[in-house]
Amino acid sequence: MEDTKALAAFSCPVPTPTRDTILLGHGSGGTLSGQLLHDIFLPAFNNAALSELNDQATLEINGSRIAITTDSFVVKPLFFPGGDIGSLAVHGTVNDLAMGGAHPLFLSAAFILEEGLPIEVLRRVVDSMQRAAEAAGVQIVTGDTKVVEKGKGDGLFINTTGIGLVRDGLDLSADCVRPGDKVLLSGSIGEHGIAILAQREGLEFESAVESDTAALHTLVAKMLGSGARIRCMRDPTRGGLSSALNEIAAKARVGIELDERAIAVREEVKGACEMLGLDPLYVANEGKLIAIVEAEKAENVLAAMREHPLGRHSQMIGSVSEKHPGLVTMKTAFGTSRAVDMLAGDQLPRIC
Amino acid sequence: MEDTKALAAFSCPVPTPTRDTILLGHGSGGTLSGQLLHDIFLPAFNNAALSELNDQATLEINGSRIAITTDSFVVKPLFFPGGDIGSLAVHGTVNDLAMGGAHPLFLSAAFILEEGLPIEVLRRVVDSMQRAAEAAGVQIVTGDTKVVEKGKGDGLFINTTGIGLVRDGLDLSADCVRPGDKVLLSGSIGEHGIAILAQREGLEFESAVESDTAALHTLVAKMLGSGARIRCMRDPTRGGLSSALNEIAAKARVGIELDERAIAVREEVKGACEMLGLDPLYVANEGKLIAIVEAEKAENVLAAMREHPLGRHSQMIGSVSEKHPGLVTMKTAFGTSRAVDMLAGDQLPRIC
Repeated sequence: MEDTKALAAFSCPVPTPTRDTILLGHGSGGTLSGQLLHDIFLPAFNNAALSELNDQATLEINGSRIAITTDSFVVKPLFFPGGDIGSLAVHGTVNDLAMGGAHPLFLSAAFILEEGLPIEVLRRVVDSMQRAAEAAGVQIVTGDTKVVEKGKGDGLFINTTGIGLVRDGLDLSADCVRPGDKVLLSGSIGEHGIAILAQREGLEFESAVESDTAALHTLVAKMLGSGARIRCMRDPTRGGLSSALNEIAAKARVGIELDERAIAVREEVKGACEMLGLDPLYVANEGKLIAIVEAEKAENVLAAMREHPLGRHSQMIGSVSEKHPGLVTMKTAFGTSRAVDMLAGDQLPRIC
Repeated sequence: MEDTKALAAFSCPVPTPTRDTILLGHGSGGTLSGQLLHDIFLPAFNNAALSELNDQATLEINGSRIAITTDSFVVKPLFFPGGDIGSLAVHGTVNDLAMGGAHPLFLSAAFILEEGLPIEVLRRVVDSMQRAAEAAGVQIVTGDTKVVEKGKGDGLFINTTGIGLVRDGLDLSADCVRPGDKVLLSGSIGEHGIAILAQREGLEFESAVESDTAALHTLVAKMLGSGARIRCMRDPTRGGLSSALNEIAAKARVGIELDERAIAVREEVKGACEMLGLDPLYVANEGKLIAIVEAEKAENVLAAMREHPLGRHSQMIGSVSEKHPGLVTMKTAFGTSRAVDMLAGDQLPRIC
């Protein structure tokens, strides 16, 4: 409760329907982002692939199943403990492909530069992108650069769009989630958001928190190789764990019941969150995934995840229920139960 | 000459090698853009597809030839005579696919919104995108929205990335250009740039100049259907006709000789250019293409182009020569010859 109340101070107010301008919260990945999607984008662009509301669209092209995903990166600051806008722009898009079970192949990279940006900054970011792409085994094959006047941008924005290949028969979607399924989480939460915030606000913690930014597609390959039926996956970025799970619960029309004790939060992150009045459930991650899997073989998937360096601390954090369809609830460490809502405003703007 | 001198007043100065910050000219599509590409992007992202330097990359995926292209749109103002940032974002990317001979299929759309943008503006832009996509027969299948603080953006930036399919055996590339080939242009030049500039500066001409923004892929299909060998195509956007032709001349190591009298410039555009000290050869187009084609069947291609509504005023504007490899020259209306250089700085920033 305290967390939730304190959180309100950091959030934008929930808008009334009369609001008619863009708020920072429209970029949060929470309720306001959802409103924009449902009021503006879905009615206009109305098509089956988009309406799936996955992090990527999977399309049939010439007999192949091609996945495509796009993300713009406006993170501030450009460089932060554990990464920078360049590595993030590669990891974020690789992960959105991976969450659809796609093998990531190619990226495009488009830059919007602000007049006056030191070219050395661009060079560092581009080198970091290339290192991240090489490590992930993807190629950056096409690009674009635009420049805007000083004061009309903020240093450097990057868009990456990714193309991947989905193997026949694989269908990862919230629609596949069934009551009884288990919820797995690949590690501790909140590190990316806290690393950014600490850097931005000049906060110092006893031990520095680094962003968890990482490419998750090899972890996903290991999970798919476990032989278990994986229903769907999400990387809980903007809006954090709570928003990703709320989206799944709403789309699958099921309840999700979490066990707070199983959700790992590193001590430094916990401390920073308490100090700042943030709830780790709403803080962004960039190298974690959640998976909803069939109950019978959930332990197999968990074992496979723990064999991968990025999944060593994987946990089963909850299960899917027929009760309270569309809602996420959490059994707290004190044994009580509380609702875990979607993020309403924007807890931390420009986190990615 | 007068044009060229007057132009200098509108251009950024050509930078010395000690310059170490981003200038508006780095987004011009001219010399400075080329420097950024060759100094920063190509060495880092070093791969065969990118090094082709086409407007799109064509990749082999699972036995299919998939083309991918990306463009960010930062045009100012958002709405202008003949179009808006939304229609432009669809046409620009469809055209980059079409220039590679790809049949455009799917687009992604990513928005960077500035806090305070009226939602009604976003709605108008999105509706315009959808109308343009529908007219072009492409689907917008995935998207992203980010929001930046007031003063850190400029209303609305859009990235579109496009996916298309290239038929087997088709290879459109500057490398295929041969001495003797003919240069075709699909209509009059300079309308997009002048429409934007007139709107931006509040200029009024006797008859309004509208942007020529349009999707060119059906025109391209008609040209490919003519049976002639088309070597390569470009849409002369940023940097205008001169930059597109200079790129081809440099890459193919050939000379290109233009005939000024064959290059159509509408009277209103000519008048505006004279008044503003601009050279139409450097002004952006968004609904025109140039094609280099084998000499023997050039007339067939021209006839096919003229049958299409967007190619009615197509002309043969020059030919490819062994002389002066890497250079574009023009026989003027007065019978003299002049070099047509690449755009050095930025004639009109934020034109697309």
